[in-house]
Formats: sequence, structure tokens, C-alpha cells
Amino acid sequence: MNIIEGGVTAAKGFEAAGVEAAVKYQGRKDMAMIYSTRPCKAAGVFTSNVVKAAPVMWDKEVVAHSPCVQAVVANSGIANACTGVQGYDCCKQTANKVSELLDISADAVLVASTGVIGSQIPIDRILAGVEKLVEAKKDTLEAGTLAAEAIMTTDTVSKQAAVQIEIDGKTVTLGGMCKGSGMIHPNMGTMLGFLTTDIAISKELLQEALSENVTDTFNMVSVDGDTSTNDTLVILANGMAGNMEITEKNADYDKFKEALNYVNTALAKKMAGDGEGATALFETKVIHAATKQDARILSRSVIGSSLCKAAIYGHDANFGRFLCALGYSGVKFDPEKVELSFENGEKSILIYKDGIATDYSEEEASKVLASPEVRVLVDMHMGEEEATAWGCDLSYDYVKINADYRS
Amino acid sequence: MNIIEGGVTAAKGFEAAGVEAAVKYQGRKDMAMIYSTRPCKAAGVFTSNVVKAAPVMWDKEVVAHSPCVQAVVANSGIANACTGVQGYDCCKQTANKVSELLDISADAVLVASTGVIGSQIPIDRILAGVEKLVEAKKDTLEAGTLAAEAIMTTDTVSKQAAVQIEIDGKTVTLGGMCKGSGMIHPNMGTMLGFLTTDIAISKELLQEALSENVTDTFNMVSVDGDTSTNDTLVILANGMAGNMEITEKNADYDKFKEALNYVNTALAKKMAGDGEGATALFETKVIHAATKQDARILSRSVIGSSLCKAAIYGHDANFGRFLCALGYSGVKFDPEKVELSFENGEKSILIYKDGIATDYSEEEASKVLASPEVRVLVDMHMGEEEATAWGCDLSYDYVKINADYRS
Repeated sequence: MNIIEGGVTAAKGFEAAGVEAAVKYQGRKDMAMIYSTRPCKAAGVFTSNVVKAAPVMWDKEVVAHSPCVQAVVANSGIANACTGVQGYDCCKQTANKVSELLDISADAVLVASTGVIGSQIPIDRILAGVEKLVEAKKDTLEAGTLAAEAIMTTDTVSKQAAVQIEIDGKTVTLGGMCKGSGMIHPNMGTMLGFLTTDIAISKELLQEALSENVTDTFNMVSVDGDTSTNDTLVILANGMAGNMEITEKNADYDKFKEALNYVNTALAKKMAGDGEGATALFETKVIHAATKQDARILSRSVIGSSLCKAAIYGHDANFGRFLCALGYSGVKFDPEKVELSFENGEKSILIYKDGIATDYSEEEASKVLASPEVRVLVDMHMGEEEATAWGCDLSYDYVKINADYRS
Repeated sequence: MNIIEGGVTAAKGFEAAGVEAAVKYQGRKDMAMIYSTRPCKAAGVFTSNVVKAAPVMWDKEVVAHSPCVQAVVANSGIANACTGVQGYDCCKQTANKVSELLDISADAVLVASTGVIGSQIPIDRILAGVEKLVEAKKDTLEAGTLAAEAIMTTDTVSKQAAVQIEIDGKTVTLGGMCKGSGMIHPNMGTMLGFLTTDIAISKELLQEALSENVTDTFNMVSVDGDTSTNDTLVILANGMAGNMEITEKNADYDKFKEALNYVNTALAKKMAGDGEGATALFETKVIHAATKQDARILSRSVIGSSLCKAAIYGHDANFGRFLCALGYSGVKFDPEKVELSFENGEKSILIYKDGIATDYSEEEASKVLASPEVRVLVDMHMGEEEATAWGCDLSYDYVKINADYRS
């Protein structure tokens, strides 16, 4: 597997664009497009929230029933959620416009929105934006970056990742982009994520690989515990790599899953580390759990705890909060057997063992916690399973950003 | 039912004290005692956290197996959690000291701690504190207030409530105190709560009434989603009111339950409104839900949402976040049927109906949200059940308090 530069335009045949459409704010890119010169197999995972944004309802239809997908249009600024019939009609009009301009079927167009919930989309600006996007789209890495920038809301950096693998002697590329960074607690994808690949694969396996992988990547991220109305992760596969289509779970499928895991993990970590107001990526790895599900629940419980997050922000080795968060996760265990360490890639400090604190140095522990990437390693001593979850610290800025997000 | 002044010393035969013992900090009351001149029936509910503080383990034993309870000793500053054998031994020594000084059985003594997890209790200071407490205890309302102050950690005000009811022509009094105000997301009680009553009632009914009532009072509070290792709520009943002992679920039992509900609700609301860094009590009432459990889950989901809490802090009528929090609660419903209003006791503003925003005034909504007690009223239009949950807003100060709580 070869890690490369780029995002949604890394794979063959994909173009992208990011333009200013003044959907809500002036003077910033706020609409993005992804286009494949050939029709794609599409798969997607969407929010489990009962309150689903209009684009989520539109996309679920398209992914389930359309023979192929060829374009995605996304906007930031307004989420088009809680917008009733008018909101859904807006998706339809957007798809119709893309259909007309690109000469593809309207049901080959996915739409996505992120931003404030409850406001109506200014459809005229969106349609004008679509014209600009069609005009601007290119297959360059830079075009991919412009698209990644256009979907940002409170994100501070754009998020892309790409890899190449070899299948049948052909180079297969997979790239993607995503955006956070608040209302992030995916139960079925992230806020918005888009993956493109030139692999040839059956629609069924594409969906299965995506659904399965999300469990250990995007669904292991939490910024604030709020599962959005708009969570969407879609993957488009146009087959242009020229490999023999993957239609069964063979070694090639496994290679693809590995590539998918790399890109999704990279994007998920970028999203967590750029959580609203974050000063650090806060990773929790639980090892030797009795079951995989236990490991997931335990690690998510820690990275989701406001008190653990605040301790990371304060560089305070207040390990009791971490034990506490493990304890209320719902998983049964013996606290006396747990070992807890703080790590930063260079150093690992054992903090808690045999039911009590070790004689660690507060100063050294605080130094480790002051790193931009902090890991809490939890050894349950119960079995062989492990899982990793990603979040961020809780800072003043999270409150600032969210106390008046709409203004 | 007659609402009266006072707390744990309101009922006949109860004494209390609050003294300085320098358990962790100098110059503040940090140990409290409750003492009944007669042996009491005791009942309790405790944290569901797998990681249980030593005093929780001690108290569960006592409540389950001791024939009676006559004293409670509590300290703030150190939680005595994650402290192993030494921590449990500390509870035993404390109880022994009380036993010796008050000439009661050691297993008639409950102990409770709150504060930093993971540090060991300085037992010498605790034992010296017990001597002071025994010396200082009195049956005055002021003594109750001193005790309520001594159990505070990051609380900004002490929390007490008391009522009187009449049973068999006798005046029965029930009073209580509690403390928050972080790591508050009770799954079986609050951080620390103590109730005293002079009613004569069987131990079984005392426990049943308490367990049942907690579901709709303390367990409907969340400050930060973190269920503590120390959550404890105990009630002592000494029978000194002189009523005929309640041994069955008759009208007298119902009267007692009503009194219990009043005191617990009052304490729970005080705890929520004084959540760490809070500037407002944030109440969510869900009406016309299909089931009682649905109503509880929905209302708790809203008051637990970081984004809803931040919106309250910012006085921002960002209603989409409230819909979103209802949507990810796990309860199924049709978003088009939900009605959502913001209220402050004087005014009620309908914000969302028929799947979209009403044409409410942002200015007026913001004014309502700037009140010290904000209520979100959610009408599900699905049935006849309702529930109320209490939390607080999320402010800079929550982060400040928790980023370096130990220093």
C-alpha cells in the first residue's frame, strides 16, 4: 500500500471543484462538486438520527435505487435539515440542474449539506453555484483541495487522504475528503465524507466493505457526543483502474478493505484532531478486552467524557476520571486488573495499576499530556480484543464556537 | 404538604455538623456529620459505575445488612475512589472512630466522600475531624446548613430542602441536602445526597419509595454526562414523628412518596442549576410521548447535549440542535409532528411545528433563553406520557473548572 498526496481527485477519472456561492457567508468557498467521467457504483452510510436532513433522504434513495452515480454536489453554511417539503424539493432542483448541465440522469446526482439546522436553503444561489462548479471542475489535486476546503464549516484545516494499491497488476487508487468538526459523534458515518476510487468492484461488496469499515473508523470518533442530522459518507467507484471486477471476498477484496481502512482511519483522525476548539488529538486504545464490542464501548466512553477531555486540555493527569469513564461505559470489569498509561508516541507512563496510582511523576505525565497527539492506553487484562477511538480535548473555544454558532 | 426551611436537621431527633478538617484544602469546611438520637431505618441508591469508591462499597454493605443506621460522616476534597484496600480500610477506621465516640455500632455508620479520584485519604485528619464533628453536632437548622456547606466541592451554593406532611394526626418532617456539581449524570442517585425523616416506615417500603422516586428526580439530571464513582443517596428514618409505622402501600405511603418527590425534585433542580460553570437551569419537559420511558430518554437526550447546552449559554435559539438531540436519542418518532417551544415561566414561544421553523422573533426567543431558568417544552403528539429532565448550560467556566480541577 502506497500513501500518496491528494483526495477525491487522486483516482483516475475524477474531477472536483470548490467555489464561492454565498449560500450563507460571503467571501469563502461554500460549494463543492465531485464528478466522475464514467458512471460509478455507489455505496453510502448515513446518520442514524431520526431527524434526517433532506439531502440524507435524497441520497439514501439514490444509493439504494439508482443504477449508477456520477456527481456529488455539497454545500456548507446551511444543513437543509428540519426544512420540510421545501428542503427536499431543493435537493431535487439541485440534482435537476446538475443533470441538465452535465447531461447525466438526475438520479445519478448525490447532494449533501452541512451547517445550521432549520434554515431554508437559498435555492437560487445553489443553482448559480452549480453552474460555477460545472465550469470550474478539474481532475487536478488542487481541484480536490478546493473541494475539501469548500465543505468546511468550523474546521480549521481541510482533510484529505489517498492511497494506491495494486490489483491484477493495475494501480488502483482510493482517495477521500471529509469535514467535521462539531456535532460529531457519528453513528453511521461522519458529518460529511466522500471517497472516490477507480477500482472495479460490485456494488454489493462496495457497500459491505464501507459499512463494515465505518464501525472501526468514523464511528469511533466523537467530538461532542452529538450525532448529526446530516452524517453522510459515500464512496464512488468508477472502475477505471482496469482491474477485473471484484465480485467475491478474495485477496483483492482484502487489499481494497485495507486501503479503505487506511483512508478512513486517516480522515477520522484528522476530523477528531480538528474537533471544534481542539488543541490535541485525544486517542484511547483499549487492549486485551474480552470482546471487540467491549473494546469499542470502553474506548468510546473515555474519549466521549467531558471530564477526560477537559483533563487533556488542562494537561492534568487526573487518571481517576479515565477510570470513571471506563466504569460507567456499561462494560463489566474488575477495576483492580486494569492498567492505564498516558502516551505521546515517544513516552509511555504507567499511571494506574493494581487498583491504585503508581508513583508516576506528575510533571512528566503533564508533559506527555501537553503533546498534540495524546494517547491513553488501557489494558483490561481480560482477553485478546482491542479497539481505538479518537476525540479531542474540551477547550474554552469549543464553548465559544458553539455558544453563538449562527451569528 | 407544607414546604419549610431547613435540611437534614428539619426532622425530629436529627443533629448535624460541618467542620474544617483540612482533608485537602485549608480554610474551608470539608467534613459533615448527620446523627440521629434514635436508630434509623436506612435505604440507599448508589452509583451504577463499575468503578465504585470505597465508601460506596462500605455503605452498600451497611444499608443491606445492618439492622439500623444512626450516623453519617462525609468529607469533600478527596473521593476515596481508586484507592484499593487502603481506601476501604479508611472507611472502617472512620466508622470505628464514630462508633467509639458516639457509643453506637460501627455498622450503624455510613461514610461518604467526594472530590478528586485516585488520591488516598489522610486518615489522621479524618479521625481528628470526626472528633470535631461529634463535639459540634446540634439539632438546629444552622447546623444542617453547616453540614450542607461542608459537602460542597465546586458547588457555588449549598442545597437543602424540607417539607412537612400530616400522617395519623402527627406532623411528619422530611428534609435533605445534596451536593453536585461536576461528574453529575446520576444513574442511581446523585453525587452525594442525604435525606432524614422522622416518619415511622418499614425498611422495605423506605427503600422501594426511594428507588422508585430517584428515576424521575435525581436520575433525570445531567451536568456533564459523567456518572461518578461516588454517587450516593441515602435516607434515614427514625420514627420519632410517632405515626403508626407504614408497612403497606396505603394513602399514608402515597403522602410520604409525594413529600419525597418534592424534596428530591427540589434538590435535583438545585443541583442542575448549580452545575459546574452554569449560568442557567436548563429544563426539558417532554409531553405526549408514547411511553414514560420514551419521555425520559428524549428529555435526557436534550439536556445532555453539549450543543444544546452551549446554545442556552449563548442565548441562541438554534432549535435545530434540539431536534437533532431528540433524533439521536434512540426513540422513534415523526419529526413533522413534533412541536418545540422555549419558555421561561412568563413566556412561551413556539419555535418549530409541522417540520419547519415558525416565524418566531429571534430577539424574543433570545430574551427567553437569557432567563436564569430556561425550559424547552417538546410536544411529541404521540401519546399521554411526560417527563422532565434538568441540566445546565455549558460555559467557559465549565472548561476552566475542569481543565485543572486538582490544582
